Amino acid sequence: MGCNALFAAVPPAIRPDAKIETRIEKILGRLTLEEKIGQMCQLTVSMVTDMNDSGHPFISDELLDTVIGHYKVGSILNVPFDEAQSREAWTQIIGRIQRRSLDCLGIPCIYGVDQMHGASYTRGATFFPQGINMGAALNCELMRRSSEISAYETRACAIPWNFAPVMDLGRDPRWSRMWESYGEDVCVNSRLAAASVRGLQGDDPNRIGMYRVAACLKHFMAYGVPVSGKDRTPSSVTRNALREKYFAPFLECIRAGALSLMVNSSNNDGMPFHANRELLTGWLKEELNWDGVIVTDWNDIYNLYERDHIAESRKDAVRIAINAGIDMAMVPLDRDFCVYLRELVEEGLVSERRIDDAVRRILRLKMRIGLFEEPFPDTSKFDRFARDEFAAVALQAAEESEVLLKNDGGLLPLPKSARILLTGPNANSMRCLNGGWSYTWQGERCDEFADRYNTIYEALARKFDHVTWIPGVEYGTPSENWQVERVRGIGEAVSAAADADVIVVCIGENSYCETPGNMNDLNLSQNQKKLVRELASTGKPLVLVLNEGRPRLIGDIEPLAQAVVDILLPGNYGGDALANLLAGDANFSARLPFTYPRWPDALATYDYKPCQKRGTMEGEYNYDAVMDVQWPFCHGLSYTTFEYGNLRANLTEFRAGDTLSFTVDISNTGDCAGKEAVLLWSSDLVASLTPDVIRLRNFEKISLEPGETRTVTLSIPASDLAFVGYDGRWRLEKGDFRIRMGTETLFVRCVETRVWDTPNIP
Amino acid sequence: MGCNALFAAVPPAIRPDAKIETRIEKILGRLTLEEKIGQMCQLTVSMVTDMNDSGHPFISDELLDTVIGHYKVGSILNVPFDEAQSREAWTQIIGRIQRRSLDCLGIPCIYGVDQMHGASYTRGATFFPQGINMGAALNCELMRRSSEISAYETRACAIPWNFAPVMDLGRDPRWSRMWESYGEDVCVNSRLAAASVRGLQGDDPNRIGMYRVAACLKHFMAYGVPVSGKDRTPSSVTRNALREKYFAPFLECIRAGALSLMVNSSNNDGMPFHANRELLTGWLKEELNWDGVIVTDWNDIYNLYERDHIAESRKDAVRIAINAGIDMAMVPLDRDFCVYLRELVEEGLVSERRIDDAVRRILRLKMRIGLFEEPFPDTSKFDRFARDEFAAVALQAAEESEVLLKNDGGLLPLPKSARILLTGPNANSMRCLNGGWSYTWQGERCDEFADRYNTIYEALARKFDHVTWIPGVEYGTPSENWQVERVRGIGEAVSAAADADVIVVCIGENSYCETPGNMNDLNLSQNQKKLVRELASTGKPLVLVLNEGRPRLIGDIEPLAQAVVDILLPGNYGGDALANLLAGDANFSARLPFTYPRWPDALATYDYKPCQKRGTMEGEYNYDAVMDVQWPFCHGLSYTTFEYGNLRANLTEFRAGDTLSFTVDISNTGDCAGKEAVLLWSSDLVASLTPDVIRLRNFEKISLEPGETRTVTLSIPASDLAFVGYDGRWRLEKGDFRIRMGTETLFVRCVETRVWDTPNIP
Repeated sequence: MGCNALFAAVPPAIRPDAKIETRIEKILGRLTLEEKIGQMCQLTVSMVTDMNDSGHPFISDELLDTVIGHYKVGSILNVPFDEAQSREAWTQIIGRIQRRSLDCLGIPCIYGVDQMHGASYTRGATFFPQGINMGAALNCELMRRSSEISAYETRACAIPWNFAPVMDLGRDPRWSRMWESYGEDVCVNSRLAAASVRGLQGDDPNRIGMYRVAACLKHFMAYGVPVSGKDRTPSSVTRNALREKYFAPFLECIRAGALSLMVNSSNNDGMPFHANRELLTGWLKEELNWDGVIVTDWNDIYNLYERDHIAESRKDAVRIAINAGIDMAMVPLDRDFCVYLRELVEEGLVSERRIDDAVRRILRLKMRIGLFEEPFPDTSKFDRFARDEFAAVALQAAEESEVLLKNDGGLLPLPKSARILLTGPNANSMRCLNGGWSYTWQGERCDEFADRYNTIYEALARKFDHVTWIPGVEYGTPSENWQVERVRGIGEAVSAAADADVIVVCIGENSYCETPGNMNDLNLSQNQKKLVRELASTGKPLVLVLNEGRPRLIGDIEPLAQAVVDILLPGNYGGDALANLLAGDANFSARLPFTYPRWPDALATYDYKPCQKRGTMEGEYNYDAVMDVQWPFCHGLSYTTFEYGNLRANLTEFRAGDTLSFTVDISNTGDCAGKEAVLLWSSDLVASLTPDVIRLRNFEKISLEPGETRTVTLSIPASDLAFVGYDGRWRLEKGDFRIRMGTETLFVRCVETRVWDTPNIP
Repeated sequence: MGCNALFAAVPPAIRPDAKIETRIEKILGRLTLEEKIGQMCQLTVSMVTDMNDSGHPFISDELLDTVIGHYKVGSILNVPFDEAQSREAWTQIIGRIQRRSLDCLGIPCIYGVDQMHGASYTRGATFFPQGINMGAALNCELMRRSSEISAYETRACAIPWNFAPVMDLGRDPRWSRMWESYGEDVCVNSRLAAASVRGLQGDDPNRIGMYRVAACLKHFMAYGVPVSGKDRTPSSVTRNALREKYFAPFLECIRAGALSLMVNSSNNDGMPFHANRELLTGWLKEELNWDGVIVTDWNDIYNLYERDHIAESRKDAVRIAINAGIDMAMVPLDRDFCVYLRELVEEGLVSERRIDDAVRRILRLKMRIGLFEEPFPDTSKFDRFARDEFAAVALQAAEESEVLLKNDGGLLPLPKSARILLTGPNANSMRCLNGGWSYTWQGERCDEFADRYNTIYEALARKFDHVTWIPGVEYGTPSENWQVERVRGIGEAVSAAADADVIVVCIGENSYCETPGNMNDLNLSQNQKKLVRELASTGKPLVLVLNEGRPRLIGDIEPLAQAVVDILLPGNYGGDALANLLAGDANFSARLPFTYPRWPDALATYDYKPCQKRGTMEGEYNYDAVMDVQWPFCHGLSYTTFEYGNLRANLTEFRAGDTLSFTVDISNTGDCAGKEAVLLWSSDLVASLTPDVIRLRNFEKISLEPGETRTVTLSIPASDLAFVGYDGRWRLEKGDFRIRMGTETLFVRCVETRVWDTPNIP
């Protein structure tokens, strides 16, 4: 079952459940080829949606008959009628699909939805900050808990499968999906994504229970580094970087029990991931002995023909993808997949063995998530849906994820009596706080659906005594392109500054998602820069609030501000969180989850090679200092101060099988409580491939009262210090490593060179 | 001798000469280990330079004794005293080094220099346009001829070895060495570099004769695509792209008889090229059975330790590099290389066999270039040095390489009576016309050394009746950073426009070279944009003359100009060429050798993958059209028009061993004579890796009188249509190819799939 002899010895990633396996074989034995192929087909809900005479869309019995009755389709995805539904509507729609599936096939349908930050296609659900914020919060337990709540509220709509988390390593700040990931780092993405999987699925992947959903790891892999910066365009990643960095979060999540995975739409230097048997079947199914489901992204099998020109026809594309290891085909608008695949099997171009393998995986997924036991959950019993306890977690996540980047002269926190001039296009918008994947794909209708939450303006007006709001610049309407801007009262804002003690300018981006979010210049818009410049000319203290899915460049206006906060995309509670933080009712504890660039043509990540770092050249210009960034990865300030001391290790010499533990004492030396993300960094001093200058290896967030000291121990398997060598094998090499926690440094020495092939050290 | 059994059947890239081989063995037999190692060491001339009491540098007998007498160093490089020398000085300095070498070792020293566009470290020599211009000219015979002249004038200084041509595929417009290559394309770089090798070396690599020099192919390989855009930083190129694209020009040049090659300073995703045995020994020496010399770039062996951290010490770095296949070590300031290598041999860490292989290669090079026969050439006999016939070739190259990008309403050519306002920082500068590698490394003293040539202002003033020059913006002095600019008389220029018929604004970049040329924003400077905007506001017709080593962004000011000419870096005759072209005394025939970007965060090359091309999205902004470039690769206008017709092929179905010939009729349908680069493009319609949308496969430049029609046939081996597959093997696959020449298209079909390993199709 997907395991060849070479890897037969690898223990299963998920221990199979005997009962489930028996039941799978029983069902498989009675299925016709058509029925099996139907299980492998996933269509979008619009394929069963019709329009009545008055133009209202509805789920059509006739189309259900065709799709499920005739084509025997086993999975449906997407949001009905292109907008968030009520819990009741979801339950009713999925119930009808389920009823038809059971009647026609005796097998429940699995319904899947793209929900990135809560049950974000359900009206009234609890929305969390987007992934990039969770990367900034660096709090695994908070990630787990928020995912658990998301699962609960998703299942409260009878939806059992969530296409999350996203672990794409957002290493190109131009990319329009940067904010869906946890930022640029391998370790941060690995640990947070695995925490999310545990939150979504719980601890027993064979029985996730009625309050959980199946996770779907996205997007396998290297999707976040398109060479052009544009969504769904090719990466150029070497095999050893794929193996060491981009594979890592998937590996960690599969070890955490993840039940399914979605494939990167694009290609790596010409090889589409949907056609890559080495990666899909080899790395995932065989090497890891993983029995989960691999699903395509939107239309991506046909893209092998229509877009990528590696197939001679749609049917040929199906052959390539299924043989590469695809189990379920998101062929959203085309039922002919079922016809093509049947013909391919009949012609001997796809084996029945491959079909059976895929169907086993799909049936296994349906059983593990309890669809056979409970195809019609009583969602009215999910009475914790959107309760205050969930809102409190979302608010905490927002507070822990808004990053204080600059606070000259301790301008922040602001006294509640401060006369605040609030301005900028992001100051009064729920859309901007949420970003894409919110109520609709592009998030453009948030202000309609999330009306009951507070924008920044509303939250500040509740918190502070004197808040005046003048937009200065505003974005377009929901029907306009997200990049549309209009100047509206810059002069008025400048005049109003005369009466203000401080100016808070909320700038950044409007919401977007996927390819429509592509753009060509990372600079913040000229309108917004102009607004900042003119306000700065008043001489009043300036706080820049950045509200953005990726780091828009502000190098020329940053010096004009005394304080800068990047709230990223904090969700529905982002305005409240900001008010608490600006007032000092909460303390900042977030760190930048990416390297914030200063220049459009000088992008970088923190884990660069030594040759990339040079000092400023002679002359009066700083242009040619190779790493001239705005703020480094993990930069983030607090209202208090922390001191590190007494770093020690459990071992000074180690071998590949050891566990290394590093312990450090941390004191809150300021005068308010604060949270601190304790970070463990390593540097490999000499290796057979040029080592990255530094790598983050582990982290933990702690809370400290003023004057309090805590001792924190962070552990890692020594094999985590290995890298993937030129020949594609993992290598831990003899030699010294420099370890850093806070200001503390020590050295440990590996006393053996070990080389191994599979991800698991032997 | 560098050939293992697997490749023993490959015919030698250069047929060995029996006499030379015998003589090599004879010398090798008498050399001590120290003497052999000395041959492998290359130092910079400053290591034999001392300073007299009055601060004047001189070549020191004492230091020659140490370097050659004691360390037995066999090669010296670089320009004495850091500035261009006279022929006489060169001859005298090299003569002294040679005398000492013969006295001490009985083996002549080989002296090498970095000369990119003529004998550019010799006063009074003929300077050609830089490589990027030769890419624009698309004229192989002109390339060969200009290299032949460069060789003559280099040998006229007793210099036998030129570190050229550069074939780095300038695919990242941010890169500071973009202009040293022939642009972004594989075919253009391959054919022009090979033409340059034939010009430099002549046709018999075993006996290049006294008027030729040894070529040195630079820089092996993928040096032109640093991920950061910065010089000497890592690339991330997959193995199949390395093999198919970056290797191609080196392959072509080795087939043309190239005698030596220099290695890329940086690393590909952590593997330094100087340590890569697979590429240096495997691809070059074994697979191609090539018996030439591999030399390092500046200090790059020690960089394996000092910068890249893959060696534990300098000595360990020597071990890694020599074992990888380095024959000659440019350890420019360190004689200890000789000590390290001797110890490594004594310790058994480097084999004597490897040393002997390297020394054979070096002795072979010295014999092939005639150093043993003629160690003291009588350079006074080189009486064609800098003659008018050479100048005419340089002028022709400049004329053929200045690109007309826009000519709205036929503004150009200008009547000689036109009242011209000439402005911009590039209008009166020999430095700007030449760029780096000109008299000095950074080219900053060109106006001193090239005083007798015409700047744009001087050339236009000779050609046109009324030329007024007002700088508007000016660059800094030679001692300042190249990016320094000062506004000087923008208002004055605007006032003067009132009396002008047309404004010619010369903008772009000042000269730079290598890492000092790094920068962070591709946009043309704000000062220069301001100058253009203010001049445009006068309403007078505007001609933008771009003078730049890489495409600086002008998207916002381009619409203000009626005509745009990119002269790139045309050398000492670039001003005269421009005057001829603007006046219509010569016709434009150049094509852009790169894709000219419009946005800083949307860089591209023409050979992209299909998924990178999408139309403009909905809405009023064009930001998200994926390929929004200023001008495409090979864009270039003429004063005349050409019509293509009757494209036909010798074969409609072909096999891998066939030669394909495509014939087309081209007519000059305008009313002046013109040259046309006839281009052959192919598109692979379906392949097992996503094919590039289009590839240039061959080109030829022709001349046509008005009304004249010519029939042109361009041929390629069918195996040129192969690509390197996912497994690293060459593949020509069954299926259709679309062929395009001008406006004409046809299809040919490959009727077999052939797969092969070595570059040569079996």
